[in-house]
Amino acid sequence: MASLAQSPTRPPYSMVKITQGNTRVAQNIYDNDQFFANYSSLPRSRDGLAAAPEWPALQAFLPPVPGARVLDLGCGFGWFARWAIEAGAANVLGIDISANMLARALELTESDAITYRQGDLESLAMDEPPFDLVYSSLAFHYIEDFGKLARGMAEWLRPGGRLVFSVEHPIFTAPSTQEFIEGPDGRPAWPLNRYLDEGPRVTAWLAPGVVKYHRTIGTYVRDLVAAGLVVRDIVEWAPSPEAITEHPEWGENRERPPFLLVAADRP
Amino acid sequence: MASLAQSPTRPPYSMVKITQGNTRVAQNIYDNDQFFANYSSLPRSRDGLAAAPEWPALQAFLPPVPGARVLDLGCGFGWFARWAIEAGAANVLGIDISANMLARALELTESDAITYRQGDLESLAMDEPPFDLVYSSLAFHYIEDFGKLARGMAEWLRPGGRLVFSVEHPIFTAPSTQEFIEGPDGRPAWPLNRYLDEGPRVTAWLAPGVVKYHRTIGTYVRDLVAAGLVVRDIVEWAPSPEAITEHPEWGENRERPPFLLVAADRP
Repeated sequence: MASLAQSPTRPPYSMVKITQGNTRVAQNIYDNDQFFANYSSLPRSRDGLAAAPEWPALQAFLPPVPGARVLDLGCGFGWFARWAIEAGAANVLGIDISANMLARALELTESDAITYRQGDLESLAMDEPPFDLVYSSLAFHYIEDFGKLARGMAEWLRPGGRLVFSVEHPIFTAPSTQEFIEGPDGRPAWPLNRYLDEGPRVTAWLAPGVVKYHRTIGTYVRDLVAAGLVVRDIVEWAPSPEAITEHPEWGENRERPPFLLVAADRP
Repeated sequence: MASLAQSPTRPPYSMVKITQGNTRVAQNIYDNDQFFANYSSLPRSRDGLAAAPEWPALQAFLPPVPGARVLDLGCGFGWFARWAIEAGAANVLGIDISANMLARALELTESDAITYRQGDLESLAMDEPPFDLVYSSLAFHYIEDFGKLARGMAEWLRPGGRLVFSVEHPIFTAPSTQEFIEGPDGRPAWPLNRYLDEGPRVTAWLAPGVVKYHRTIGTYVRDLVAAGLVVRDIVEWAPSPEAITEHPEWGENRERPPFLLVAADRP
């Protein structure tokens, strides 16, 4: 049976604090009932990795998993944690800010090689031995200070260890309106703007008022390099033309990538 | 007096061959009279680095220049070559495909530590000793096979040497129409599409029928890493807010970056 651990050195739960104008609001959107209900009904929430079309590309970034000690940041329902154990990982520590997410993850998990811990990626402390793999799927765009997190991850990895993560692509997070329009020549176009204007974006994804942090690919790379990590690969991911034949509703994603996938090593 | 050398192992001049549909056309647009006349009147052609607003960001990527052996790929009028010699470089080899460009570069150059050579970056051979710095400004988006060029550059650099280059940003090169429009909320928007569709783009920049090659940031990074280089920095460059106060006509460039700047090292 998987266990729900408390962080040894931090309060068990802290809210992500963000600043919008002059008001300070707390964001743990996954513990908002409306959001969580909507999130829980997404295909990737119900069916896990098999319903995440970018998973094969992210999987291709992974180092050998058998025997690996794995840290999963923003583990959600634990789909990756369970996959990693099935693929032979020695153990997985999954961190998530949401009690809702972790409760469901615990229900779904039988392996006692998986530990879930409630924690805030903005201020995470870790006193475990170093990990072979730090993994994160679609969580870091909720993080304001990626540089700080990158320094943390570089420290939590063993020398030779690998970081693999996905985020919403900066082209996706940047603009003031996030819907395709008809371009001047009739082709669908993504009305990109605000790309250089890094910072919070308030969107209505599954619930109103969801805050994501837009930063450029350049900033992701610079923060990783400054933390002492070596970038090994970047994929600006969209469904393949073959996948779109099967799922025509994904077609517009080849006009602009929805996700950014990154692999980096600690030398 | 600078010299115009011929490549020792290749014909002195070969046209860039590109394929458009079923016709094969040759591109050395800088030896097209209309294009060259327009190009020559650009501020950065007349006034060199001082008129290139991204130059300070690119300069920040340079290793120590004094004593360095420098290779400048797509050297154009030789502005960087002359700057490097003034900054103390031991010598500079400037390569360009255009006889027009090199003739003008020779006129402007007095130092005999600069050698210009006509050559095609798609098929460049080099038998010089390795360089400390390979530099290129806004040339590689004319190159179809960046992977091959990256392998060449990794070979031409000494261990510990650095590659610094700028290209038109993929967000700039991708779309089917390259003009800002009014977005759904009234803010200027860049109608991005075709981002995942890598390959030639025929534009009307200074002359009709100019062909540039769109590739993603991911592809640039992957090709560099595959060539054995280590990415040190990526800047998705746009003028600073301060620069825009001085040049309001640049304002829209903060909505989407015009240039991508990359620094990579040979370990």
